[in-house]
Amino acid sequence: MSDKIPYKIYLEENEIPRQWYNVRADMKNKPAPLLNPGTGKPLGLEELSPIFCEELCRQELDSDTAYFDIPEEIQAFYKMYRPSPLVRAYFLEKALGTPAHIYYKSEGNNTSGSHKLNSAIAQAYYAKKQGLKGVTTETGAGQWGTAMSMACAYFGLDCQVFMVKCSYEQKPFRREVMRTYGAKVTPSPSLTTNVGRKLLEEFPDTTGSLGCAISEAVEAATTQEGYRYVLGSVLNQVLLHQTVIGLETKTALDKYGIKPDIIIGCAGGGSNLGGLVSPFVGEMLRGEADYRIIAVEPASCPSFTRGKFAYDFCDTGMICPLAKMYTLGSQFIPSANHAGGLRFHGMSTILSQLYYDGIIEARAVEQTSVFEAAELFARVEGTLPAPESSHAIRAAIDEALKCKETGEEKTIVFGLTGTGYFDLKAYESFNDGTMSDVIPTDSQIAESLARLPKIE
Amino acid sequence: MSDKIPYKIYLEENEIPRQWYNVRADMKNKPAPLLNPGTGKPLGLEELSPIFCEELCRQELDSDTAYFDIPEEIQAFYKMYRPSPLVRAYFLEKALGTPAHIYYKSEGNNTSGSHKLNSAIAQAYYAKKQGLKGVTTETGAGQWGTAMSMACAYFGLDCQVFMVKCSYEQKPFRREVMRTYGAKVTPSPSLTTNVGRKLLEEFPDTTGSLGCAISEAVEAATTQEGYRYVLGSVLNQVLLHQTVIGLETKTALDKYGIKPDIIIGCAGGGSNLGGLVSPFVGEMLRGEADYRIIAVEPASCPSFTRGKFAYDFCDTGMICPLAKMYTLGSQFIPSANHAGGLRFHGMSTILSQLYYDGIIEARAVEQTSVFEAAELFARVEGTLPAPESSHAIRAAIDEALKCKETGEEKTIVFGLTGTGYFDLKAYESFNDGTMSDVIPTDSQIAESLARLPKIE
Repeated sequence: MSDKIPYKIYLEENEIPRQWYNVRADMKNKPAPLLNPGTGKPLGLEELSPIFCEELCRQELDSDTAYFDIPEEIQAFYKMYRPSPLVRAYFLEKALGTPAHIYYKSEGNNTSGSHKLNSAIAQAYYAKKQGLKGVTTETGAGQWGTAMSMACAYFGLDCQVFMVKCSYEQKPFRREVMRTYGAKVTPSPSLTTNVGRKLLEEFPDTTGSLGCAISEAVEAATTQEGYRYVLGSVLNQVLLHQTVIGLETKTALDKYGIKPDIIIGCAGGGSNLGGLVSPFVGEMLRGEADYRIIAVEPASCPSFTRGKFAYDFCDTGMICPLAKMYTLGSQFIPSANHAGGLRFHGMSTILSQLYYDGIIEARAVEQTSVFEAAELFARVEGTLPAPESSHAIRAAIDEALKCKETGEEKTIVFGLTGTGYFDLKAYESFNDGTMSDVIPTDSQIAESLARLPKIE
Repeated sequence: MSDKIPYKIYLEENEIPRQWYNVRADMKNKPAPLLNPGTGKPLGLEELSPIFCEELCRQELDSDTAYFDIPEEIQAFYKMYRPSPLVRAYFLEKALGTPAHIYYKSEGNNTSGSHKLNSAIAQAYYAKKQGLKGVTTETGAGQWGTAMSMACAYFGLDCQVFMVKCSYEQKPFRREVMRTYGAKVTPSPSLTTNVGRKLLEEFPDTTGSLGCAISEAVEAATTQEGYRYVLGSVLNQVLLHQTVIGLETKTALDKYGIKPDIIIGCAGGGSNLGGLVSPFVGEMLRGEADYRIIAVEPASCPSFTRGKFAYDFCDTGMICPLAKMYTLGSQFIPSANHAGGLRFHGMSTILSQLYYDGIIEARAVEQTSVFEAAELFARVEGTLPAPESSHAIRAAIDEALKCKETGEEKTIVFGLTGTGYFDLKAYESFNDGTMSDVIPTDSQIAESLARLPKIE
């Protein structure tokens, strides 16, 4: 701890970004547009706006504007929990005996427990501004639903959350947080939508799926006057809002003259990774700097490392638009043994294009090794990490250990997306020694990919 | 938000206190000494040191030294989660429409979820320094057990936690956090101690009590070579360690030239309240300043407001020393409907003396009104508070509403001891509308007080 860099680098309140950065503006190869699954043609504002808020549709479709002003009302809310600290992992470095310098951007210091709030408050704001009554959404593990509930409570919007039934029952605490914030939480499938009723008729004992919850939320949004649907990852707009993470990280690093060699983020739909790395990728695309950027995904849901770069449905229900992305096929469902989030079959179109173009790299890690990293991190750094974030911790530790071998004093930055306080079922199975690794077979993936829609 | 004071006042790392402040040094009427229940004589080092670490015994017994240096190893650990922010509750002020300025010192930003870590790390350090193998302790709601587990993991000490059986079963997540930090968590009563075996023989279906868990932990400490017992509240040493809260608060306020009118803390055993108010009480005792200091306790366990200032046992098992304090009687057990902590029958001897001398005041609040305050706070300030902390929120809101009536622009500071992420059973009963208030009758309290030990 003799180093001059403090354990936590806090920015001043006036250093919270006032603009989001749209990395698409600097991409020569733009991410492919969303397609209407019926016509196969790019979706426009008029097709998207019955589902999403208008301003958000504009952000979704805009590949040219480099910066979007963050409205003052959102800036005010950001002050509640931002700037988030960039932490120098002195204790982890010491425990590993590595010459590497490790930093992490810690996004879990808010009740939703993750970075999801950065986009939730933006989406709630635009819904309020449009004069809507409320929004609908789905939640699996519950981070997004909690974030959206908090954001809606702040703006006095109704929030209807369809929560995958097995999570609703197994994660009653998440549900109660949402209820405390005034959200209406419905176990999905439910009797409140046509999709839900139909599914329950066919499979009365189903415990639900994210795909079904999405379909119910979209139906609820489009059949109620004054409602729109909101989504917590994958979309361009979400990555845009999440760039507050990367912009703050860059400001904090610049303040101390630190230049990272490696930037690491976990990758599910891509919201955190995209938000963290966008400003750095921008520098790379403009030829101003060079970094190694590593996406870390679960071996049980390896869309980057074993998926195909192709147009696919964004949902298992096959009602949402088609996106060109690395995908395992919309019917791919990770093993029930897979703990935590990062279970989306596809990946943000922006990140997919960047990976395809060789700007970022990717690796898959197995969950027992992820929880080993999580346990070490919790013990030495004092924060119990979310299973999702722990994928990034695993890769950061692995890179730091390589430095130990080579003696290189590299600077590693990773995103600690959140805390694991509502994920203790997964920790329990790790503590009990009953957690197993789950890796899909080649034929499982091939079978799922065989069902991709036929579009070039 | 036009005010110049930021939403969160963060101190610099080098502004973390380097000394704890011992308010006893400034008290003319010192708190009465602990007595040996057998002899009725004050306890000395030789009697305390088989139970507690030697250095901690010295801190416990020292009423004269005003400042104790914080060892460097503890300072290093404090940097992991300190300085904690002093937050200007702009959003709450706006929601209440009050001219009052409200601040809260937020201690929940660490995985143990509360201020308990401030003393846990100190107690673990002295155990390590003394060359011990480990420590034993008890935990009810789980905040203290979690804090102690984290502290022991840091110093590589064995940590044996006796967790009240009903909590062990109803709060599996707390248990898993402790296990993740390597602690051995045993449901109490257990078969591992004489006390536990005896109790189980007599009452095989008992779900345990804090009193029994204390007795088991003390037995385990004194019958294993190289172990001592640690306690998370009530003791002088604990209040001493917790003064980092008050010292940081004072530094942050001084930085912006803010002079509080009212300082509010929740009170169970007194660790948080004592830590927060000590530096301010010191000023009062030295005649340098004047404040209103309010202890807030649950109406279901009202030791200050309805108890007696007398010598009593610190535990229901009547094996621990006698302390002169405001007490409801060592056999008093709050109703099962009482949610959360703050259920100790007595109160820190320091705070008891200060209350007796009229330096601090106290009030009792009912739990449904506490959860109403908690819900409002969560919605507008973005942090789901612990039920314990919400007692202070309730009183702060009430004082702020009085200012609204009178138009006074008072400055109110309160302690937000922690987050409620592991207390969602209580929130559930509040959300469901099934929570009730529980106030002991006069005869219940009189009956319990009739059993006080006969000592003057």
